[in-house]
Amino acid sequence: MPRFDDFVPGKRFRLNSIDPAATPFSKGSEAEQKGRLDALAARLDELQDLLHANGGRRVLLVLQGMDTSGKDGTIRWVFGRTSPLGVRVHAFKAPTEEERARDFLWRCHAVVPRAGELAVWNRSHYEDVLVPTVEGWIDREETERRYTHINHFEQLLTDTHTVLIKCMLHISKAEQRRRLQQRIDDPAKNWKFALGDLDARKQWDAYQKAYERLLRATSTKHAPWYVIPADDKLHRNLMIGELLVERLKAMKLKAPPANPALIGLKVS
Amino acid sequence: MPRFDDFVPGKRFRLNSIDPAATPFSKGSEAEQKGRLDALAARLDELQDLLHANGGRRVLLVLQGMDTSGKDGTIRWVFGRTSPLGVRVHAFKAPTEEERARDFLWRCHAVVPRAGELAVWNRSHYEDVLVPTVEGWIDREETERRYTHINHFEQLLTDTHTVLIKCMLHISKAEQRRRLQQRIDDPAKNWKFALGDLDARKQWDAYQKAYERLLRATSTKHAPWYVIPADDKLHRNLMIGELLVERLKAMKLKAPPANPALIGLKVS
Repeated sequence: MPRFDDFVPGKRFRLNSIDPAATPFSKGSEAEQKGRLDALAARLDELQDLLHANGGRRVLLVLQGMDTSGKDGTIRWVFGRTSPLGVRVHAFKAPTEEERARDFLWRCHAVVPRAGELAVWNRSHYEDVLVPTVEGWIDREETERRYTHINHFEQLLTDTHTVLIKCMLHISKAEQRRRLQQRIDDPAKNWKFALGDLDARKQWDAYQKAYERLLRATSTKHAPWYVIPADDKLHRNLMIGELLVERLKAMKLKAPPANPALIGLKVS
Repeated sequence: MPRFDDFVPGKRFRLNSIDPAATPFSKGSEAEQKGRLDALAARLDELQDLLHANGGRRVLLVLQGMDTSGKDGTIRWVFGRTSPLGVRVHAFKAPTEEERARDFLWRCHAVVPRAGELAVWNRSHYEDVLVPTVEGWIDREETERRYTHINHFEQLLTDTHTVLIKCMLHISKAEQRRRLQQRIDDPAKNWKFALGDLDARKQWDAYQKAYERLLRATSTKHAPWYVIPADDKLHRNLMIGELLVERLKAMKLKAPPANPALIGLKVS
């Protein structure tokens, strides 16, 4: 299996150094790959149970990517076997008036996982160094300041026993065209399409640049980013599934010890 | 008037360099002082109105101090003329199970002031570098790490247009004895007294040391601490009232401009 570290951006990272169409984590036929994904999803369910039983620790998975990059699909398939009880998904939309009335990390801090929980953020605090940067609402200096605040915030989370896993779903512009066109052509998918998606697509290069910068600035030792080649959906799911299983296994979660007071106890 | 800067702790600050019984901000007879406090409270009401009208900024007053040091009294008298609409008070108790299940700043971030608000915290995130430190639940290294997280968190708030004012109400051990004794001797004050207060008093020196350390570590340019001589209640109120008025005036809040569209408009 390839090394995950090869997909962690460094300080001079270039987004085009990773091919969105690559499938390094795919092995064997499609049926074999699907079988492996199913096994990973089941393993993830077991690990999540252990996380819950251990109590003291937390896991936060952050999913970022352009429209149609597959954030919803990842959640559906990677957590396909996990009890909804153990996985708390939070989707971040454009900030409300209440949210804009505080600093940009306020609404994120409010929904960090509690002890024993695995939380998944569909979009995140990183939206606040994407849209405002591309639209020019904030200047370079303010963007840099936000990177620093983000790194401090994530340091707080990891220092207090949260394992943070950040995935950028990396698709090509051509693949996005295909997926958007599908949403337009297939009436059953029309609800997923908003005209505003085309505006963001017009700014494709600016968004890629903004992603490149944030990946460089906020991929840290304690909270690394992983750039996931995501043109192939099955590969995307396999890679993220493998990554989660590896990171959760590295936490060395153990089943809580048996209670000696219960030995020999008979329920009458 | 003395300078507030003289009450801001530096890196080598000693708590015993400030006399709790000093009254540098008191002038004239008791009646004159009470008159001035009333004028300050009225001025604070005006400034709070401007803060609300201006919208984009926030103020957070943090009050810390040993039991009986006068946190409640400060809120009562300094904000005696301010509309409760404009001042949001939050009292922090021992953390609940829900709160302990996240990092120690989570419950604080949840109640930061929104735009246009003045929030007062009766105790705060600083409790988490006091009780656990004195009780030995966390070691020196963890305490230092918490100072860093606190400084980062406060930097986020001040960077995003929050003015942070932190007051440590500094009383002497003898004055605390008098006040606790009053709570015991006066049946009408019994409800304010808990036997646990005596346990904390037994650790007086350890708490003073813990305060000294946190004042040194977390008094920053953007979020300074002010050590308030607080044995004299009227002095405590006057000093905090003056400080708030000065800090709010320095924000140069302006009344929003008139709306030209309303000129000559008659309501029929």
